[in-house]
Amino acid sequence: MDTINGQNRTDCIGYKDFPAHVGETVCIKGMIHRIREMTGFAFVILRTARETVQCVYSPDFSDYRMDESVAEGCAVKVTGKVVKDETREGRYEMQIHGIEVLSSPAEPMPLVINKKQLDNIPIDLDLNLRPVTLRNPKERAVFKIQEGIARGFREYLFSQGFTEIRTPKICAQGAEGGANIFKLDYFGKQVFLAQSPQFYKQMLVPVYERVFEVGPVFRAEHHDTSRHLNEYISMDFEMGFIDSFYDIMNMETGALKYIMELLKKDYAEELALWSAQLPEIGDIPVVKFMDAKEVITKKFKKKITDYRDFEPEEEQILGKWAKKEFGSDFLFVTHYPSEKRPFYAMDDPADPAYTLSFDLLFRGIEITTGGQRIHDYNEQVAKMRARGMDPADFESYLMAHKYGMPPHGGLGLGLERITMHLLGFKNVRYASMFPRDINRVTP
Amino acid sequence: MDTINGQNRTDCIGYKDFPAHVGETVCIKGMIHRIREMTGFAFVILRTARETVQCVYSPDFSDYRMDESVAEGCAVKVTGKVVKDETREGRYEMQIHGIEVLSSPAEPMPLVINKKQLDNIPIDLDLNLRPVTLRNPKERAVFKIQEGIARGFREYLFSQGFTEIRTPKICAQGAEGGANIFKLDYFGKQVFLAQSPQFYKQMLVPVYERVFEVGPVFRAEHHDTSRHLNEYISMDFEMGFIDSFYDIMNMETGALKYIMELLKKDYAEELALWSAQLPEIGDIPVVKFMDAKEVITKKFKKKITDYRDFEPEEEQILGKWAKKEFGSDFLFVTHYPSEKRPFYAMDDPADPAYTLSFDLLFRGIEITTGGQRIHDYNEQVAKMRARGMDPADFESYLMAHKYGMPPHGGLGLGLERITMHLLGFKNVRYASMFPRDINRVTP
Repeated sequence: MDTINGQNRTDCIGYKDFPAHVGETVCIKGMIHRIREMTGFAFVILRTARETVQCVYSPDFSDYRMDESVAEGCAVKVTGKVVKDETREGRYEMQIHGIEVLSSPAEPMPLVINKKQLDNIPIDLDLNLRPVTLRNPKERAVFKIQEGIARGFREYLFSQGFTEIRTPKICAQGAEGGANIFKLDYFGKQVFLAQSPQFYKQMLVPVYERVFEVGPVFRAEHHDTSRHLNEYISMDFEMGFIDSFYDIMNMETGALKYIMELLKKDYAEELALWSAQLPEIGDIPVVKFMDAKEVITKKFKKKITDYRDFEPEEEQILGKWAKKEFGSDFLFVTHYPSEKRPFYAMDDPADPAYTLSFDLLFRGIEITTGGQRIHDYNEQVAKMRARGMDPADFESYLMAHKYGMPPHGGLGLGLERITMHLLGFKNVRYASMFPRDINRVTP
Repeated sequence: MDTINGQNRTDCIGYKDFPAHVGETVCIKGMIHRIREMTGFAFVILRTARETVQCVYSPDFSDYRMDESVAEGCAVKVTGKVVKDETREGRYEMQIHGIEVLSSPAEPMPLVINKKQLDNIPIDLDLNLRPVTLRNPKERAVFKIQEGIARGFREYLFSQGFTEIRTPKICAQGAEGGANIFKLDYFGKQVFLAQSPQFYKQMLVPVYERVFEVGPVFRAEHHDTSRHLNEYISMDFEMGFIDSFYDIMNMETGALKYIMELLKKDYAEELALWSAQLPEIGDIPVVKFMDAKEVITKKFKKKITDYRDFEPEEEQILGKWAKKEFGSDFLFVTHYPSEKRPFYAMDDPADPAYTLSFDLLFRGIEITTGGQRIHDYNEQVAKMRARGMDPADFESYLMAHKYGMPPHGGLGLGLERITMHLLGFKNVRYASMFPRDINRVTP
């Protein structure tokens, strides 16, 4: 009887193991990323899980004769001797003794992926060819960095006593209202795709006190902009027993600091490919919405046309102001007008026209919306009625309030959006592996 | 100017801190889970994020007088002295000096949640009242354990060089075929909800070699069974450069061993509430599909009516056989018939009627399906055509094959299903916080 014991054996090593094997004959597996023919020898660049590895073919090293079966796009096992790279300090390479071709492509690449970066191709071509363009090391680095952001968010919240939840994406109601909700036929009944996990994370506050989720949300955005995706990854948390919504802002700031440290520690090679400058997060300044409007008019002489929200240009102004005045890439703006915030936002008892809420601006662009929520049943029902909503439509959500829940609040952070701004992309699609927009559902 | 520095301050402590504060006056926050009035004193049981904490009210301890504002369902801050619980070895309690009510419920609980377990209520009532029933410590423990399973899966795969991916749930094609796919109107175009991340994880093998995802998948199951959900969490991985599909089985076995160790280490209290017996995972026996059929006929005298797949009863028989013959809760069955496996499964070159695939049975129930996939473009196109599929419909998926991908394979593991069997539930709905079935999209 055969048995499986869970031991992951491999005859080969990875590039990280090279320094310990200098002078030894070993093997390594990877995709042939590039072949550079020189006079009398050749470089065979392997693309492995995270590195590219230089292997050198020369008849001087062995009797092996490389032929045209060894081509770009092949999966190969290369055997050879590990040596120091004499031309690049601290790097290692392999002198090829033999190459075993494990699989071969049917066609040559449809575009060049093995230069430092992709050529300046139209975004639609890039996205249409994602299974290929992501093979470029700089392109794939984006989503390794994105992995790190989500990992940091999760690890930090675990350290703060949060429980990870996974809430349904097929829902009977939308949590955020408005027209941007996808409808779905569900065995003859109309249901919706979740716009956010808002209801569920609130319902779970009386259960676990602190909860978070990293998962997809769906917004039927009818506009084709550079900032919106119709499906994106939302990093959400919700925490009970807060003293004020400042507790939420502190939790987020702690998470962001942890994320930046994690990226520096574990994702330095990927960041270097993008020459990304990670923000230093010190003390983040806090300004009230109306005070921010005053800064915009008084210091920047801009006429305010809308006192209910910011225009993108105003956020840019505030970003510059935070950098100049406080040396901060980040700025918390608090106390947004009630009429522009959702029905579950808690109004400020000191001035109910405003809410106990905040946005976080990063380099002048909003990356988070959060705040304290209403926990009192009667207060929530009254606010729903005042907005023309029928509390009966929200029966299971309101169970949380009806049977008792602590003062609480939380936030949502778009994973693609923070990736985009960290790497300086002009279009959020570059921060999504397989973006969905009004015109695109492939690949 | 106010600033936020990311320091999470709290004036109170948690139950885990009690041993270090014996004899001191501290505070703790929580939901009032239960009040037990005794003669001249009362127990006030707090439900905190992960523990229930016994607080004792008695006029002997302080001048504080508890009144009816302190009720079950209130969120409170209790101040008092930490003492050893004289009746329960190793436990601590608080002598109440004062209670501050932070919020109050609008109504008393609609059912009893503060006993050791919920009363034996109909499943529909339990699920309808999920925001309430999950407040029972034994109920909420299910999803804390589920958190641990997913965390273990992720942590193990990170340790093995995998990259975490997040693939789109709105798709142009279904990956698994069949009728159980949800259709969605997407700006006038028909699209689908992902049945699995299969295409995407394969496309990403030439990019990152090893990838995994823990995320929702959607199946339009028309049957109302105890084993199926219409939305569930799939734990998927895919790995390149395998020597055979045994590499996948070893990776899964390593992951399962890690998960069980993690549960023992970090989730012991939750497991104890369910008296859950975690399986010991030693060497897992492996049997070929046709040999397993022979075991069923020869050793168990059952007549086989279908040589293409197992009936649930046959899996039960194999589970008992594995336990009796090999002392194993797990059994790998390999080489399933080609006609019952998906179009991307690799046929066995030694006998193309069977595939290089496996199922993992846990206590006689299938929890995983996996195997080696076709990596050669022409082979994949030929198998599609043989099944009446048009390769043109899968253009972006086939880019992975066309431009080269290594030998690879992977698997999917249903998070709710493994939770269900670990805790011995008869219905998978108990292993989903907010289950979706043909009749249910709420809460």
